[in-house]
Amino acid sequence: MAEQVILREVGPRDGIQMAKRFLETERKLEWALRLEAAGIREIELTSFVPAKVVPQFADADELAKSLPQLGGVVVSALVPNLKGAERALAAGFTHINYVLSISEAHSLSNVRRSTDEAIAEFDRIAALRQTEAGRAMVLGVGLATAFGCTLQGHVEPERVWQVARHVAAGGADELIVADTVGYGNPVQVKMLLPPIVEIAAGRRVICHFHDTRGLGLANVAAALDAGVRVFDSSLAGLGGCPFAPGATGNINTEDAAYMLESMGFSTGVDIAALLELRRDVESWLGDERYSGAIARAGLPKTFEIAK
Amino acid sequence: MAEQVILREVGPRDGIQMAKRFLETERKLEWALRLEAAGIREIELTSFVPAKVVPQFADADELAKSLPQLGGVVVSALVPNLKGAERALAAGFTHINYVLSISEAHSLSNVRRSTDEAIAEFDRIAALRQTEAGRAMVLGVGLATAFGCTLQGHVEPERVWQVARHVAAGGADELIVADTVGYGNPVQVKMLLPPIVEIAAGRRVICHFHDTRGLGLANVAAALDAGVRVFDSSLAGLGGCPFAPGATGNINTEDAAYMLESMGFSTGVDIAALLELRRDVESWLGDERYSGAIARAGLPKTFEIAK
Repeated sequence: MAEQVILREVGPRDGIQMAKRFLETERKLEWALRLEAAGIREIELTSFVPAKVVPQFADADELAKSLPQLGGVVVSALVPNLKGAERALAAGFTHINYVLSISEAHSLSNVRRSTDEAIAEFDRIAALRQTEAGRAMVLGVGLATAFGCTLQGHVEPERVWQVARHVAAGGADELIVADTVGYGNPVQVKMLLPPIVEIAAGRRVICHFHDTRGLGLANVAAALDAGVRVFDSSLAGLGGCPFAPGATGNINTEDAAYMLESMGFSTGVDIAALLELRRDVESWLGDERYSGAIARAGLPKTFEIAK
Repeated sequence: MAEQVILREVGPRDGIQMAKRFLETERKLEWALRLEAAGIREIELTSFVPAKVVPQFADADELAKSLPQLGGVVVSALVPNLKGAERALAAGFTHINYVLSISEAHSLSNVRRSTDEAIAEFDRIAALRQTEAGRAMVLGVGLATAFGCTLQGHVEPERVWQVARHVAAGGADELIVADTVGYGNPVQVKMLLPPIVEIAAGRRVICHFHDTRGLGLANVAAALDAGVRVFDSSLAGLGGCPFAPGATGNINTEDAAYMLESMGFSTGVDIAALLELRRDVESWLGDERYSGAIARAGLPKTFEIAK
C-alpha cells in the first residue's frame, strides 16, 4: 500500500488573494466542489481578513454558508487575528489557520505587530477553546518567513523552533512551516524541519512552499525525507503579488500530485480532473500568472497512480 | 571548504539543436568564452552529427578552430557514431560524448540502430584509442532514455546497469545518465544512480536531466544524495523540440547554480554574469522557449556564494 500524502489546496485563498478580478462566490464554491470531486481532501477556502485589506475575501461569511455542501473535505479558513478567528468560528468554520511571521520586519509590515505581539494574539485565539463557539476548533499555526524574508533577510532557525515550541505547548493542533517568499532550499528544509516534527510530537506538520525561485518541488522532496506528509499547494501555481515583479505562487497542485504519485506516494488526486478545473479557473480569473509543467507537457506515458 | 559541483553547460549543443535560427559561429564562440568568463568549467560546444540532420552544427569543424582560445575550460563535442568521433578527433577535440539509447524504440528512431548495434558502435569508438588521433581521447558515454521513453514507455533499470557495465569495462571514461524526455523522479534517481556510481568505480558520473515535467531540480537534489557531483545544464533552460508541444530543455544553468550554491555546494559560477549572457543569447536566437526562475524573480537578499 502506497503511503498517503495530503495536498491541501490553498488556491481559493493564497492563490487569489492578489488576483485582479473578484471571483464570484458561486465560482469559489464551484472551485471547491470540483476540487473535492477531483480527490482533494483539504481546502483552505477563504480568509477572514478585513475586506478593506483584501477585497477578494469580502464574501467569506457568505461562502461559509456553503460549508454543509463541502462535507467530504476538510475546509479551513485563514485568520489574521483574534477578531478574524471569532468571525470564522461564528461563520461555522472549525478549522482555523492563524499565521504569524517569524521575521519581525515581515510581521510589522504585514500585520503591524511584532512577532511577540503576534504570539500573544495566538494565545488569545487558542483561549477561544474555552468558549462555546471554539470548543471544536482545530487550530493550525502558520510560521511565516521561516526560511528567510525579503525585508529582514536571514531568519534564525532557533527562533522558528522557539515559536514552534510555544505554539505547540499553547494549543496549536497543526504546525504550518511557510517559505513565504521562496527562499528555502533542500538543505535548509532538511535542517529546519526535523526539529519541528519533533516539537510537533504527533501533531501534523504542514509545509507551505512557494515556487518563486524554482525550488518548490525540490523542497517538497526534501521535506518528504524529513518526514512531512502534508503540503499546501495551489491549482495552476496561482498566487504571488502583482506589485512584486517575478513573485510567484504556491507550489503547483497538479505538478506536486504528479511528482508525489510518481515517487510512489498516494495523493488520491485525479490529475486530469485538476487540469480540466484549471482551464475553467483560468477563464474565470483572466489575466493572472499560471504556471505548471504538467499542464504544458502532459503526464508521461508511463505514469501510474501510486497504489 | 564547500564541496564542488560542476555544471557542464550544454546550451551551445543540446540547447540549440532544434533552434529555429542558425547561430553564427562567432556567436557560438562568444557564448563559450563568456561562459568561461562566468566561471563555467566545462562546455559541450557542438555536435558532429551530419549537417543535413541538424543544420545548426554545420559549423562544427569551423568552431573547433577556436579550441585554443578556450584553454581554461574543458570543451567536449557530441558524436552520434564512429564517423562523428573520427571527425571530432580530427578537428582537435579530445573530449568526446557518445550517446546511445537504452530504449530500443528511441535508438531505432533516433539513429536507426538497435541498442546492441549502438553498443557495438561504442566499442569501435573506444578502439580509436589505438590510433594516433585517439590516443588522448576522453570518452563520455551517454545513456539516453535511462528513466523512460516517450516511444517505448518503461525502461528497465537492469538494462541501464547492464549497458553501464559494458561501456565502463570497454573504456568509457565518464558515464552520463540522461533523462532524455523528462520522465525521472527523485525516488527513481535514488534507485537508479547508486549502482551506476558503483559501476563507474571512480569514473565520473554525470546526470543529464530535462525539466520537461518540472522535476529537474528535485532530481538534481536527489542525485546529490546519490553522490553525483556533475550535472549537464543549459543557460535559460534552452532546448526542447519545436515539433513536440510542451517539450522543454535541460535543467536551467542559472537556477541550478542558485540551488547548488544555496545548498552549500560551490559551482564557481557567477550567476549575474550568466543572467547578462542569457539576455544576449535571447537576442541572438530570437523566438525560443526560455525558462528560469532566477531570471524572473532574482536572487534572494540572503544569497551567498558557497565557500
